[in-house]
Amino acid sequence: MTPNAEQLVVQTLGPATFPSPVPLSRRLGPNFVDDGMRVAVEVELHERDGERLRSPIGFEKAGPREKIFFDPENTRVGIVTCGGLCPGINNVIRAIVLELHYRYGIRSTFGIPYGFEGLDPRAGLSPIPLRPKEVQHVHRHGGSFLGLARGNRDIGDLVDGLQHLGIDVLIAIGGDGTLRGAHKIHEEIVRRRLRIAVVGVPKTIDNDVAFTDETFGFETAVEVARGTIDAAHTEALGARNGVAVVKLMGRDSGFLAASATIASMEVNFCLVPEVPFEMHGDQGFLDVLEKRIRKSGHAVVVVAEGCARSLMANDGEHDASGNVRYASGGNDVGPYLREKISAHFKAANLPLVLKYIDPSYLVRSVPANAVDAIFCDSLGRNAVHAAMAGKTDVVIGRWHRIFTHVPLALATWERRRIEPAGDLWRAVLETTGQPEFRVPSPESLRPGVRS
Amino acid sequence: MTPNAEQLVVQTLGPATFPSPVPLSRRLGPNFVDDGMRVAVEVELHERDGERLRSPIGFEKAGPREKIFFDPENTRVGIVTCGGLCPGINNVIRAIVLELHYRYGIRSTFGIPYGFEGLDPRAGLSPIPLRPKEVQHVHRHGGSFLGLARGNRDIGDLVDGLQHLGIDVLIAIGGDGTLRGAHKIHEEIVRRRLRIAVVGVPKTIDNDVAFTDETFGFETAVEVARGTIDAAHTEALGARNGVAVVKLMGRDSGFLAASATIASMEVNFCLVPEVPFEMHGDQGFLDVLEKRIRKSGHAVVVVAEGCARSLMANDGEHDASGNVRYASGGNDVGPYLREKISAHFKAANLPLVLKYIDPSYLVRSVPANAVDAIFCDSLGRNAVHAAMAGKTDVVIGRWHRIFTHVPLALATWERRRIEPAGDLWRAVLETTGQPEFRVPSPESLRPGVRS
Amino acid sequence: MTPNAEQLVVQTLGPATFPSPVPLSRRLGPNFVDDGMRVAVEVELHERDGERLRSPIGFEKAGPREKIFFDPENTRVGIVTCGGLCPGINNVIRAIVLELHYRYGIRSTFGIPYGFEGLDPRAGLSPIPLRPKEVQHVHRHGGSFLGLARGNRDIGDLVDGLQHLGIDVLIAIGGDGTLRGAHKIHEEIVRRRLRIAVVGVPKTIDNDVAFTDETFGFETAVEVARGTIDAAHTEALGARNGVAVVKLMGRDSGFLAASATIASMEVNFCLVPEVPFEMHGDQGFLDVLEKRIRKSGHAVVVVAEGCARSLMANDGEHDASGNVRYASGGNDVGPYLREKISAHFKAANLPLVLKYIDPSYLVRSVPANAVDAIFCDSLGRNAVHAAMAGKTDVVIGRWHRIFTHVPLALATWERRRIEPAGDLWRAVLETTGQPEFRVPSPESLRPGVRS
Amino acid sequence: MTPNAEQLVVQTLGPATFPSPVPLSRRLGPNFVDDGMRVAVEVELHERDGERLRSPIGFEKAGPREKIFFDPENTRVGIVTCGGLCPGINNVIRAIVLELHYRYGIRSTFGIPYGFEGLDPRAGLSPIPLRPKEVQHVHRHGGSFLGLARGNRDIGDLVDGLQHLGIDVLIAIGGDGTLRGAHKIHEEIVRRRLRIAVVGVPKTIDNDVAFTDETFGFETAVEVARGTIDAAHTEALGARNGVAVVKLMGRDSGFLAASATIASMEVNFCLVPEVPFEMHGDQGFLDVLEKRIRKSGHAVVVVAEGCARSLMANDGEHDASGNVRYASGGNDVGPYLREKISAHFKAANLPLVLKYIDPSYLVRSVPANAVDAIFCDSLGRNAVHAAMAGKTDVVIGRWHRIFTHVPLALATWERRRIEPAGDLWRAVLETTGQPEFRVPSPESLRPGVRS
Repeated sequence: MTPNAEQLVVQTLGPATFPSPVPLSRRLGPNFVDDGMRVAVEVELHERDGERLRSPIGFEKAGPREKIFFDPENTRVGIVTCGGLCPGINNVIRAIVLELHYRYGIRSTFGIPYGFEGLDPRAGLSPIPLRPKEVQHVHRHGGSFLGLARGNRDIGDLVDGLQHLGIDVLIAIGGDGTLRGAHKIHEEIVRRRLRIAVVGVPKTIDNDVAFTDETFGFETAVEVARGTIDAAHTEALGARNGVAVVKLMGRDSGFLAASATIASMEVNFCLVPEVPFEMHGDQGFLDVLEKRIRKSGHAVVVVAEGCARSLMANDGEHDASGNVRYASGGNDVGPYLREKISAHFKAANLPLVLKYIDPSYLVRSVPANAVDAIFCDSLGRNAVHAAMAGKTDVVIGRWHRIFTHVPLALATWERRRIEPAGDLWRAVLETTGQPEFRVPSPESLRPGVRS
Repeated sequence: MTPNAEQLVVQTLGPATFPSPVPLSRRLGPNFVDDGMRVAVEVELHERDGERLRSPIGFEKAGPREKIFFDPENTRVGIVTCGGLCPGINNVIRAIVLELHYRYGIRSTFGIPYGFEGLDPRAGLSPIPLRPKEVQHVHRHGGSFLGLARGNRDIGDLVDGLQHLGIDVLIAIGGDGTLRGAHKIHEEIVRRRLRIAVVGVPKTIDNDVAFTDETFGFETAVEVARGTIDAAHTEALGARNGVAVVKLMGRDSGFLAASATIASMEVNFCLVPEVPFEMHGDQGFLDVLEKRIRKSGHAVVVVAEGCARSLMANDGEHDASGNVRYASGGNDVGPYLREKISAHFKAANLPLVLKYIDPSYLVRSVPANAVDAIFCDSLGRNAVHAAMAGKTDVVIGRWHRIFTHVPLALATWERRRIEPAGDLWRAVLETTGQPEFRVPSPESLRPGVRS
Repeated sequence: MTPNAEQLVVQTLGPATFPSPVPLSRRLGPNFVDDGMRVAVEVELHERDGERLRSPIGFEKAGPREKIFFDPENTRVGIVTCGGLCPGINNVIRAIVLELHYRYGIRSTFGIPYGFEGLDPRAGLSPIPLRPKEVQHVHRHGGSFLGLARGNRDIGDLVDGLQHLGIDVLIAIGGDGTLRGAHKIHEEIVRRRLRIAVVGVPKTIDNDVAFTDETFGFETAVEVARGTIDAAHTEALGARNGVAVVKLMGRDSGFLAASATIASMEVNFCLVPEVPFEMHGDQGFLDVLEKRIRKSGHAVVVVAEGCARSLMANDGEHDASGNVRYASGGNDVGPYLREKISAHFKAANLPLVLKYIDPSYLVRSVPANAVDAIFCDSLGRNAVHAAMAGKTDVVIGRWHRIFTHVPLALATWERRRIEPAGDLWRAVLETTGQPEFRVPSPESLRPGVRS
Repeated sequence: MTPNAEQLVVQTLGPATFPSPVPLSRRLGPNFVDDGMRVAVEVELHERDGERLRSPIGFEKAGPREKIFFDPENTRVGIVTCGGLCPGINNVIRAIVLELHYRYGIRSTFGIPYGFEGLDPRAGLSPIPLRPKEVQHVHRHGGSFLGLARGNRDIGDLVDGLQHLGIDVLIAIGGDGTLRGAHKIHEEIVRRRLRIAVVGVPKTIDNDVAFTDETFGFETAVEVARGTIDAAHTEALGARNGVAVVKLMGRDSGFLAASATIASMEVNFCLVPEVPFEMHGDQGFLDVLEKRIRKSGHAVVVVAEGCARSLMANDGEHDASGNVRYASGGNDVGPYLREKISAHFKAANLPLVLKYIDPSYLVRSVPANAVDAIFCDSLGRNAVHAAMAGKTDVVIGRWHRIFTHVPLALATWERRRIEPAGDLWRAVLETTGQPEFRVPSPESLRPGVRS
């Protein structure tokens, strides 16, 4: 079923001669596609192909191995969930428990309550034995039935806890901090010459884990966020000069804001931290928003929380000694934007009905939708396969829709961010029709230096 | 952000020595993964890399070109939807209309009503002018607001219709038959030396288009199908010896049945056309079902409609002249299975409460969920980009999550089917825990030859 | 806050002189409202008001009594669920368990598995101890976690079972048959001079319990049924001459069909057993449907399953000896209607795309929506209050939105049916705009007598 | 089908002698039910029954009259929507338009854009002609497609607008302020001796209209609010000492908070303006919350926004001159509560993970659920019937589930509030198990007087 080169040839009616009117940015990069760009037919390779292909060889593929490292008779597994909620955590746990129980015949699986805290012998928390019965219905509920916690703990204490509980395999479901913690646990395990496998399942509603197509729960979050935007659109349409602002999660990256924007099809302006813009001045955001309201009478704005940093720095006013004074008290981009928009329209003497929606926890506490349920099931089972095969210091990733093993150090190397010249952001621009905003000048980004 | 080979190395605790107890089939193929299997880091290439990589070069990447073939001032576009319903059709149409109107400035876009019938001058149907206003809310509704139709029509008539309407670009949203029709239309266009671009958007709830990751609407259908299975599970649990059978669409392939099975996490037996099995005899389906009921008191069965063919042939009894007599009247696998199960349990003198659920049209008539909405938006816009650049005889595909141009002949070359030795089916086996059923013997599949 | 008569006077602009064009039926009864019709301000009364008001005094109000009959220290309660599924059963059970545990301090509550069968000592089923922990999450799931069963059992055996388990209070959640069974159990209890309270909670998806506003789960079912009709509407719109037929539950009454019809706002014809009609002939259903298709090109038909009886009898053809021969094999109104419509359009030489949807179990297996959750919570708690106060041979009803005690004999006296001259059916007529169909002549209903 | 007194008699096992342990409040009033309390069988009466029954006669029943006041040939109808969003507005408009068009044959129906502003000739807004086509799909969307506005306008201008547009019937969908405005419009119409009918449809998400069972959209709002509480519960369970606070709408009454609390079944504390309580001190809210956290480790709190007034007054500290200083800046009860809880736990040295959820607009911008869709359909049609019959200065109410005519003056006489001694609040107490909080002393409610 592999096509040959001839079969892949695309017909054209003739040479393309007209310049495209599509208003893509040349500034952000080569947003246009050229005809020589290709998508490889095959993405699964074998290690021995490396040399032949002269290409960097890829990720190790995840999945069940024919030979395994741990003897199922004598293996004890601990599962821990850390950080914030995310749709599908319970699905991952359930898949792990069922795979261990039914496929590997393991009878000692434990849930560590309330994150790494539950590993700390001094926390006074007991591990929860997990058999199929305990996880029978958990996937129908959001959250983590094990409980989670944030915060750093002493790595030595945690490895003490692992040893105390006799755990051979630790599966940690968590975000960036958790995975860094898991890596340190692995290092301490190596130092102590223990034989404990540490396998991570990356969890973040921001979907910004490097070398992973997508993290679980993200599509569910997009679904909920879309509903929020629909509500905002309804509110904006319901009032004369109605502007609705929706704030979505995304500390460093705007994936949720961008994806929900496209899914909704009703957003006029999508603001993400990866694409800087000026608030004020000609073609600044407020100016463009005002023009739209004068023309169309309503607008929907989606903003990722991570816009706060640059926006507020940029917008700061300076006191006598040249230090930035933030116009808004907190560091929350939502109220900040609300305040700026209100002030701008007041100054422009343009009536405005402004609605602000912050769905916050509603986005992350729902059960996984069907796509995420499928995703979580495979993540959980592949985590088991990896651990049982003796893989360690590794997370389960997915790359081009195939499950992979990604070394922990690589997975936490950097955060994935929206590529302003890439396909996702182009889709946002096409859906919203938003113009290129005025960009902060380099100076304005260093306000303290202004004379 | 490209990792080097060293960064991709996965740690192991030591050599894996135990044979895996995971009950994967060796018969279906190498279901286990070996450590040398790799997933390529980069999947986007440039044509000129072809030689360097010595690998078959891939699909042409879709997207907006800097130079286009058609002059937006004088281009007329027709959109047609054919076949059965599928979530997201209206989203695709909306994206096409908005992209043409706002980005390319095209003012002559038409919807062809009721499939290719609407192109036939003798059908007495008028094209519907499509501007942004007409498509403002359509994405919130299932179905196709243009109407669809099935059935073959004379290709000459259809090209007459295109010429009559002065159409330069025809975008056809439809399934296998539609795409074959579009290819023939293209051939007739070439024969008549016309300059009309023909671009397809593949549509099938069965998700079985070749060289496409996935077709739009599929994930929405999985969501609805999962709900149906949840209902079945509830029914099965609610009765002593409760068996619930859910029939799902899938004429040649079981993608919907398999995916909904994994998403639901409650299915005990998933039956698809790609994986043959015996109904009767030791370790036949009925025998295995009976054992499960005796042990657990309830069971959920999901069957793809396409199992009908082989099952019924296989199960036929022979009359005096050696012809097959079908036990069941029709060719619907649902009632057939219901009948067989009832008869088996009656013969086994085992009480049974059997519930049969056929969600049929409910699965395909809903609006697109968020993931599909995003998918459809890009499909529609890329169809416009392709057509405006003068691409023709092509469909918009998606490969490794990247949008591509797939020649029509390639896209209709064959149907995609579940690989019994691949990752998807392995996930089904792991989730259901279903055993390998007894397989029909080669003879039994040729019943007429039996002496 | 009680208004006086003067405050209730409604202003009019003057005498109404024009005859109303609203096409309401005079045949079905006084569908029009006259100005003298009133809705009482107060509906809660006190027994002693009876004489003063000279009106039949009403139902005993449900709720917690200050003095109770059973000593909480020594009371054992059994809960049993019978018949088919209905949204909210688990909510009712949960409310009963929590009320008994937290409010009355009762420590011996049991679930009887699989209906009355679980009471029969010979069934080999053990009662399930129910504490708050066991019911913590059950309301999030459809069905009954206790399991249900249909069918008659020996009343003596069941009372033996109650005595064997030492049960003081039996709360039975079930339909007509269950409540009749509960009444017989009460009679046997009286005969044996036992002190066991029997309290019922009526459960039927058909919403046809007499002297009850509504039964629990009904509004949830309407919600799901509406979704089904929306799907049907989408299918009908998607095809030229598209007709979609939805069959809904309702053996003797069409409440579900009627309510879902109004909720959907997209139905053209709603057929219920309470309002007879002719299939054939001028202004028969098929004739009217044909006219609509010729005019509008699509139609949505909702039919209650209970139409089967009269329709099929009416439509029967007679053999030589005057016996009815049913045109269709089974007694299922859905396939019957599908067959008749197809035949009629074929005879009329009118192309037709017919879609048939039978949501069946999907309507009844979902969890309760919010309204039903509230309803179920109060039903369960009031069942406890009634039983603890020593009420017996009684069900919890709701009348004018107030919870009541209805004697079992009264609750099973007759079934509630749609009043063709009442408000609900008028709303159906207004929403659908369906005409009065030709009515079967009295002779046609007695086919055997035809000469 | 009317039962006689004998049939209504409820059996008891014997005299109730034990005092009930159910912890109902005696302070709030007679929360227990006594056996003499009755619910009337019949609630529909005829005016002429008034004397016979010696009871205050009830509301005029709504519905189509056989004779009407306006000549359908020459009647022009205006529809206006005012105030905030509420699920179902579009359904009401659609029902009005369809009833006018199809049943009364009226061809001049207009939507007034953006509330009463659209009637003001100086606003420069044109009425929108409404035919069935314009409202075909509107019920699938939340909001009001006509737009709404708040604020007072000159009554004379509005009646000028009505005259200018030649409107005979004005149907106003709106809240308290709108209905008061409609009443004044009626008075001005009378003053000018015009023949214009003014009919209102009460709209408020707070469900606090007097003499109306319920207002439309409320049950949909409860459904969404329940989802919010489920999310809060998930968050609270996910953290050690997790407290989740949900703020819901309800300026003067806590119906939404109370109903969503019961529907959710997961709330531990429900705070409404009708039931005052102390924050501080022994058995104050904070003290009770702390006890619960120490015992159970998590808690869900639902608070109606209207609690702000009394709480903040009550909680104010006094400056030197005896004036209240509010601890929190604004008057928003949510942040206030969040701040108080945090401070209390900090003072108690008890770790706390506090999540605050304010679903705000999400609750009111969704489309109507099935129950509300049915409700809205009848409201709209009954508004038409009333207006066409010449009724004026009236709203459509629903009383004991029957549609009524309520004079505008009566409908705006006072707001409906939760009766602390009634059935709804008892259900809240039973579901939450919350204790009676310490009540503010009369002095504390007049802080200025404190010496």
